[in-house]
Amino acid sequence: MTEGLDHGLPPHDHGARRERLRDSLAGRWLLVSHPVNVRYLTGFTGTAGPVLVGPSAEHDRLLTDSRYTERAAREAGDLPLELTRTPQEVATELVREVGDDGAETPVLGIEADHVTWVQAREAQRLTEAAGVRLLGVTGAVSQLRTVKDDAELARLQRANDITASALEWLFTEHVRPGVSERELAITLERRFIDLGADGVAFSSIVASGHNTVSPHHDPGGRQLRAGDLLTIDAGARVDGYHADHTRTVGIGHLGEQARRIHEVVRVAQQAGREAAVEDALTGDVDAAARGVIEEAGYGRWFVHGTGHGVGLEIHEAPSVAKGGTATLAVGTTLTVEPGVYVPGIGGVRIEDSHVIVPDGPARAFTDASRELVIL
Amino acid sequence: MTEGLDHGLPPHDHGARRERLRDSLAGRWLLVSHPVNVRYLTGFTGTAGPVLVGPSAEHDRLLTDSRYTERAAREAGDLPLELTRTPQEVATELVREVGDDGAETPVLGIEADHVTWVQAREAQRLTEAAGVRLLGVTGAVSQLRTVKDDAELARLQRANDITASALEWLFTEHVRPGVSERELAITLERRFIDLGADGVAFSSIVASGHNTVSPHHDPGGRQLRAGDLLTIDAGARVDGYHADHTRTVGIGHLGEQARRIHEVVRVAQQAGREAAVEDALTGDVDAAARGVIEEAGYGRWFVHGTGHGVGLEIHEAPSVAKGGTATLAVGTTLTVEPGVYVPGIGGVRIEDSHVIVPDGPARAFTDASRELVIL
Repeated sequence: MTEGLDHGLPPHDHGARRERLRDSLAGRWLLVSHPVNVRYLTGFTGTAGPVLVGPSAEHDRLLTDSRYTERAAREAGDLPLELTRTPQEVATELVREVGDDGAETPVLGIEADHVTWVQAREAQRLTEAAGVRLLGVTGAVSQLRTVKDDAELARLQRANDITASALEWLFTEHVRPGVSERELAITLERRFIDLGADGVAFSSIVASGHNTVSPHHDPGGRQLRAGDLLTIDAGARVDGYHADHTRTVGIGHLGEQARRIHEVVRVAQQAGREAAVEDALTGDVDAAARGVIEEAGYGRWFVHGTGHGVGLEIHEAPSVAKGGTATLAVGTTLTVEPGVYVPGIGGVRIEDSHVIVPDGPARAFTDASRELVIL
Repeated sequence: MTEGLDHGLPPHDHGARRERLRDSLAGRWLLVSHPVNVRYLTGFTGTAGPVLVGPSAEHDRLLTDSRYTERAAREAGDLPLELTRTPQEVATELVREVGDDGAETPVLGIEADHVTWVQAREAQRLTEAAGVRLLGVTGAVSQLRTVKDDAELARLQRANDITASALEWLFTEHVRPGVSERELAITLERRFIDLGADGVAFSSIVASGHNTVSPHHDPGGRQLRAGDLLTIDAGARVDGYHADHTRTVGIGHLGEQARRIHEVVRVAQQAGREAAVEDALTGDVDAAARGVIEEAGYGRWFVHGTGHGVGLEIHEAPSVAKGGTATLAVGTTLTVEPGVYVPGIGGVRIEDSHVIVPDGPARAFTDASRELVIL
């Protein structure tokens, strides 16, 4: 039983994804080793199991070891398995097979941005001996992954729904002076599970008071006090797909400067979302959000990019940053999450995950309010 | 405030670790990029921040970006920081600095088993231009890390104490027919937090009935039934250090074959522990445990290695597998976790984390009973 069926979500079509990849390979072979890419192409969730994608579907196969026999058969049952021998034996045979495919100059690609230098040198040795040309390929699968199919969007929707619902519940039921950051993080994460998530997308960021100036604060023992800003950046994970969602609220009351920062960030986030249209560049989205913050005089306190792709990884292509040149296509997902962090005052970040749609601005996965709330 | 101080545990001496590394470098520079190795050498827990270790302490520095300024200053305040410029600018200057260190042939090592092929090619380009020789280094830091210092052992002890205590509580209070694997996993993980852990060392494995034949089973909706075997493999994490601990129990009653397998695995685990003495090879430990299982006729059902090092990573050097040639030194940590998985009957695994001590067999971190318990 796969995780996806557990959730009553539509099944993945891994074979169709391999065909899309094959189309981009033009007759070359590609050994895909990055575990997330393997999962995307086969469904296999073990940490050790590269998939070889060949010139036609009959060449495709998954390589794993005996710890994962049962899991591989269950999750990637449509693919032949290579098992029980040493990785060296398997690699040697693979390379021989590539060399025998009838091509004039057989080419084997490996994921140059994921294999280590040590692995690359070993691959060079093996391919040289077999008369195969080794090619370092970057981004072939991550590029495909930027555009989500319906099965993926359904999982992202579920993960974001759970996240927004749990966060609203947390704000209503648990956020009050005296409660610690850490207690809030644990309570929120448990709620994700109760609502049907497989787990968390990442360790929740819960930052209060002066801790809000640190964008990646680890929740600690600090207890909420009236007058605090409180930023919670968290996400649920459903069948491997990650939600990413941030809201900043006030506790009891807020000073004028904190209110002003919240408003600037809220408007910046909206501007970013509105710039996230089909065929726009990622840099356009960043510029729209950043422009609002710079005009308000807080440019130097916006210390990170505006967003990133999100799916099987919490951070994936495309990066939404200054000067980014990736083009947004329908189905591309991205976060828009500007923030302003002023020492002595505090930090505010507002974030939604979105998908690019045919007309108009990107669709946020949830309509959770972005207005300032004082709890 | 560091995580370590939160726990009232002895502080790390990161400078001493860098000196030990420097001794092994013989005047060469090493850029350490693997995040866990960076944490070991500096305390910095961000995910983006290589540390450069030079011929003397004054050369050492941490490189990170503006998201981590505050964290780097707090966690690795004894090291100069490089910030605010592009990674390319920083890399170029670094390589120039290595080239200017006065050595006849300046050498810069990079972690060849952690940098990607893409990164290695960029490093080759930069070093060639600067007259620096680039060296692919493997295992320099992971080798140091195999022998734990007192600060590390204190954290491993705490993590294992929490794990064993939580598991005993779970067996007593929650394990009964009708409860699901998943419910047990969540309850156990929450208990880790309540007992002071920072989180889980890895996603808990809770396998019942026929699921026990899969060594890496993800806990699902299956409910315990009388006659089941139940394997729980879990660990708490304390200040970055991982516990790893497994027990297999019976529910209500167990068949003769399941009882026999449990006894074989228990004796095999004890044999492995007794073979884990100073100056033994990892292969000796594997052979001791495996020998017991093979003699009992279950050899083909022991489908994985006997154990692994454990510390800042849940799996680290040394690997404890067939033919392993790493030598065990006092302070080396390792798990001993033989298992037998027989389709149609079920699987049993028993695991403790240990440290090698001067005289006699490895010391298990806890004395939690390994006898068969029927709940």
